[in-house]
Amino acid sequence: MSHKSDIEIARDANKKPIQEIGARLGIGSEHLLPFGHDKAKVSQDFITSVQGNKTGKLILVTAINPTPAGEGKTTTTVGLGDGLNRIGKKAAICIREASLGPNFGMKGGAAGGGYAQVVPMEDMNLHFTGDFHAITAAHNLLSAMIDNHIYWGNALDIDPRRVVWRRVMDMNDRALRDVVTSLGGVANGFPRQTGFDITVASEVMAILCLATSLADLERRLGDIIVAYTRDRKPVTCRDIKADGAMTVLLKDAMQPNLVQTLENNPAFVHGGPFANIAHGCNSVMATSTALKVADYVVTEAGFGADLGAEKFMNIKCRKAGLAPDCVVLVATCRAMKMNGGVPKGDLGAENVEAIRKGCPNLGRHIQNVKSFGVPVVVAINHFVTDTEAEVQAVKDYVESQGSEAILCQHWAKGSEGTEALATRVAQIADAGVSQFAPLYRDEMPLFEKIETIAKSIYRADEVLADAKIRNQLHDWEEAGYGDLPVCMAKTQYSFSTDPHLRGAPTGHSVPVREVRLSAGAGFVVVICGEIMTMPGLPSVPASENIRLNEGGQVEGLF
Amino acid sequence: MSHKSDIEIARDANKKPIQEIGARLGIGSEHLLPFGHDKAKVSQDFITSVQGNKTGKLILVTAINPTPAGEGKTTTTVGLGDGLNRIGKKAAICIREASLGPNFGMKGGAAGGGYAQVVPMEDMNLHFTGDFHAITAAHNLLSAMIDNHIYWGNALDIDPRRVVWRRVMDMNDRALRDVVTSLGGVANGFPRQTGFDITVASEVMAILCLATSLADLERRLGDIIVAYTRDRKPVTCRDIKADGAMTVLLKDAMQPNLVQTLENNPAFVHGGPFANIAHGCNSVMATSTALKVADYVVTEAGFGADLGAEKFMNIKCRKAGLAPDCVVLVATCRAMKMNGGVPKGDLGAENVEAIRKGCPNLGRHIQNVKSFGVPVVVAINHFVTDTEAEVQAVKDYVESQGSEAILCQHWAKGSEGTEALATRVAQIADAGVSQFAPLYRDEMPLFEKIETIAKSIYRADEVLADAKIRNQLHDWEEAGYGDLPVCMAKTQYSFSTDPHLRGAPTGHSVPVREVRLSAGAGFVVVICGEIMTMPGLPSVPASENIRLNEGGQVEGLF
Repeated sequence: MSHKSDIEIARDANKKPIQEIGARLGIGSEHLLPFGHDKAKVSQDFITSVQGNKTGKLILVTAINPTPAGEGKTTTTVGLGDGLNRIGKKAAICIREASLGPNFGMKGGAAGGGYAQVVPMEDMNLHFTGDFHAITAAHNLLSAMIDNHIYWGNALDIDPRRVVWRRVMDMNDRALRDVVTSLGGVANGFPRQTGFDITVASEVMAILCLATSLADLERRLGDIIVAYTRDRKPVTCRDIKADGAMTVLLKDAMQPNLVQTLENNPAFVHGGPFANIAHGCNSVMATSTALKVADYVVTEAGFGADLGAEKFMNIKCRKAGLAPDCVVLVATCRAMKMNGGVPKGDLGAENVEAIRKGCPNLGRHIQNVKSFGVPVVVAINHFVTDTEAEVQAVKDYVESQGSEAILCQHWAKGSEGTEALATRVAQIADAGVSQFAPLYRDEMPLFEKIETIAKSIYRADEVLADAKIRNQLHDWEEAGYGDLPVCMAKTQYSFSTDPHLRGAPTGHSVPVREVRLSAGAGFVVVICGEIMTMPGLPSVPASENIRLNEGGQVEGLF
Repeated sequence: MSHKSDIEIARDANKKPIQEIGARLGIGSEHLLPFGHDKAKVSQDFITSVQGNKTGKLILVTAINPTPAGEGKTTTTVGLGDGLNRIGKKAAICIREASLGPNFGMKGGAAGGGYAQVVPMEDMNLHFTGDFHAITAAHNLLSAMIDNHIYWGNALDIDPRRVVWRRVMDMNDRALRDVVTSLGGVANGFPRQTGFDITVASEVMAILCLATSLADLERRLGDIIVAYTRDRKPVTCRDIKADGAMTVLLKDAMQPNLVQTLENNPAFVHGGPFANIAHGCNSVMATSTALKVADYVVTEAGFGADLGAEKFMNIKCRKAGLAPDCVVLVATCRAMKMNGGVPKGDLGAENVEAIRKGCPNLGRHIQNVKSFGVPVVVAINHFVTDTEAEVQAVKDYVESQGSEAILCQHWAKGSEGTEALATRVAQIADAGVSQFAPLYRDEMPLFEKIETIAKSIYRADEVLADAKIRNQLHDWEEAGYGDLPVCMAKTQYSFSTDPHLRGAPTGHSVPVREVRLSAGAGFVVVICGEIMTMPGLPSVPASENIRLNEGGQVEGLF
């Protein structure tokens, strides 16, 4: 077994020209807009041309609630994609792009790990194909046009106190969270308190990831509510006349990016909305395109299944007309032990009892996924210290839940380690047993949608929301937004809103602190707890140690 | 003659794959990092490999003081490059990249015009190869790290009132000129008044354009002064430990971009620093690389020759060891008439007398350029309404100044219209008569450098500066910055600091309002008048009319 680091493995990758990867999916080089020799965007013309193709099987990779032990959701997505190709299937994966800002905070980045990675890793953790920069520019153009409109006479009668559209930057910069702009006198406009979010929190990001075409993108951008008048009437991006120019800025960013895994299998890496105030999945454009050129598409959703899979099903699949054929739920022995009460420092020691105690977290996710009518397989992502007894304990538990668990060793062995999983997943997907349906109907009142998720998925007893919030939801229903899905923003560490409550809690309450309307993205954000939309840097940021070494390679980014 | 618009001509361009353009310069496709099929970055490895080649001839295109009539400096640069190729010379052009922000303000953009353009025009006016986004990210990472340093204990003892490093955005957004950051309580840091500049005004932009290697880039970034301590000691980017990560963010942006003219001749388009608070030329990397792969390199400098050519000679050439072989000074009959007092509305009518009256502006630029020891040719950029008598008047005047003027019709005819100019420029460059020397020695005291430019180039009687400014210059000399060149920031519309004073004024004074040290870029900025570093949008910004048409083409950007 290798002792190389992720970055060493990635640097040793034997990459093929991206045209070869595209050719395997039937994408001619004239339809690949290259970015370097190992990245390309797939042309809109090509995407249009394959709409008549049959649709491949869609496999979602999700996970238990994340623990500090790590589960390896992206790693498993990559490993499963490679595994499917290994057993002779035409498979592609779809994952999210990395945000630039956080890479300079904590040592991070990477797309997958070990021998289950997507490359070129460095580019993917830096500017990649510029999509996030385009989103930043489009978002901030709208911001500038709003203040400019007010400056030049405010014909729309915007209440400067009720401008809800902030600015964004792809950077961890706490100093920008809360700012006053337009100081300095007459020439600079009317002072206003506002702030910056990180780019992945932009509604433009969510829109780009849900839009099905450039026309749909422009319509959704136009629908964004940017401010309210003094008599509380919404002012949209379309009123500001920014939708056209924003679409122009985003036209290339809308095209999915194609790269490859270490095993030279196709990987679409496109979009990356927050998994709390947005839906946390890669773009519909990427997933839909992949389904037209591959027989199996493996994708993932942010955080654990209570947030990620729920939103994937209730928002992305509902809106894009997608239906998963199989769900893979990633768990690790270590994470089960942490759910069973073992502190991180003691994870190295065998503890079958703790695993049995922690497994109900996994069990509830299994049941939740099944409630969408989709078959589920548990992937046990193997870690070197896992004992046979521990692995068996997880398998036994999963079987007791009427499901099955398969040990995977893709981190150490690449696709060889996921042959069993890939074989079983392909069987299930091919069997066509999935009877996917979202959890609630479009017509259900907004508050009931929240209650449905809280009770069915989180197993809470009740949703707490004061009259102001209920009235706000009612007003939006009156205004025609009642048929939107809800996008839950709560801690990813627990089924409850208390991050320290591991396992499978019941009897808890879900307090709603705030609701926000993302009219362009097409969902109502329901905030249950502290949600940070602009991170800060730690006391010793990773950026202090990031530099080019003498060979011109990037050090410290991973 | 065609009546197509610039954008129609650009869309009809018969572009060749960028690999073919590179091949003509001996750049193998493995050394071209493609961005789409019509743009590429030239690899650092290739640049290193050609350092032993002989150096081509360098031709600078500059102009009279700009008037609302327009001179067509970039158009002439493109036309001359095409003309040199037409007469069988191996020539390349080097121009600046466009800034994104201003394109959404006034209808603008474009690189050249008529049949003398660089393509792909749309990309060049949008994200291009992402260089400016990389500069924005690198600049703002430093900003975030400064505030983060203060937040976590301020070990460097930075005086928060004396943080001189602002933030940047590639957007015309007056609301960001003057802001207070870090509001909102303990978690967001210490409130501070600061602001945003447009990205082209960033010192990082100036540094990228003057750096000769990635190591030089990192050193210069480290030298940036970002703040002062309470006892007025400078704090650098190196102290903040941001130089390594910024270099990583800029590593691809440092590689010059290769595109093509409408006539499929090579064009390097790289970097774009402000021409007032910075030096206003494309990157040294691009110019130096072009000189190693082409026999003739045509480049340009921002604004008129009093600012652009002066900085090209005294800053860029001095620092990069470049020496121009010939200067082309662009003038138009219309601009001469405006200098002669004709209002814009009356420019259509023949007025030889006004031309004679306006020509001294041109004459002084001729003399100024000659004072650097470089031969000069005047290019009369032909406009359809120009009469023969008007053109002859300009020619006669130029001859009386001991120089020569050549009529050019590249706008209407492409390279056919610059054959005569190209032939003459090549003769001059080949003759090796240039005896280039900067205007002042490195060792000259800073204030004397300012006086030298004001008296020799602007023909002012005196430089006015109060004791505070003179003391500041003296302090910098004491601190070891005395050998830096000065970078003059004044109006481009006049030799004087009064934008309304056309022609060739004498006897005026140059008041210095402020001096700034750009220690990383390596110059002292001398501000003589109002300099706007963050533009605003007009009452009806161009962005309101920018959109994709049904054919997917961009409308309203040009």
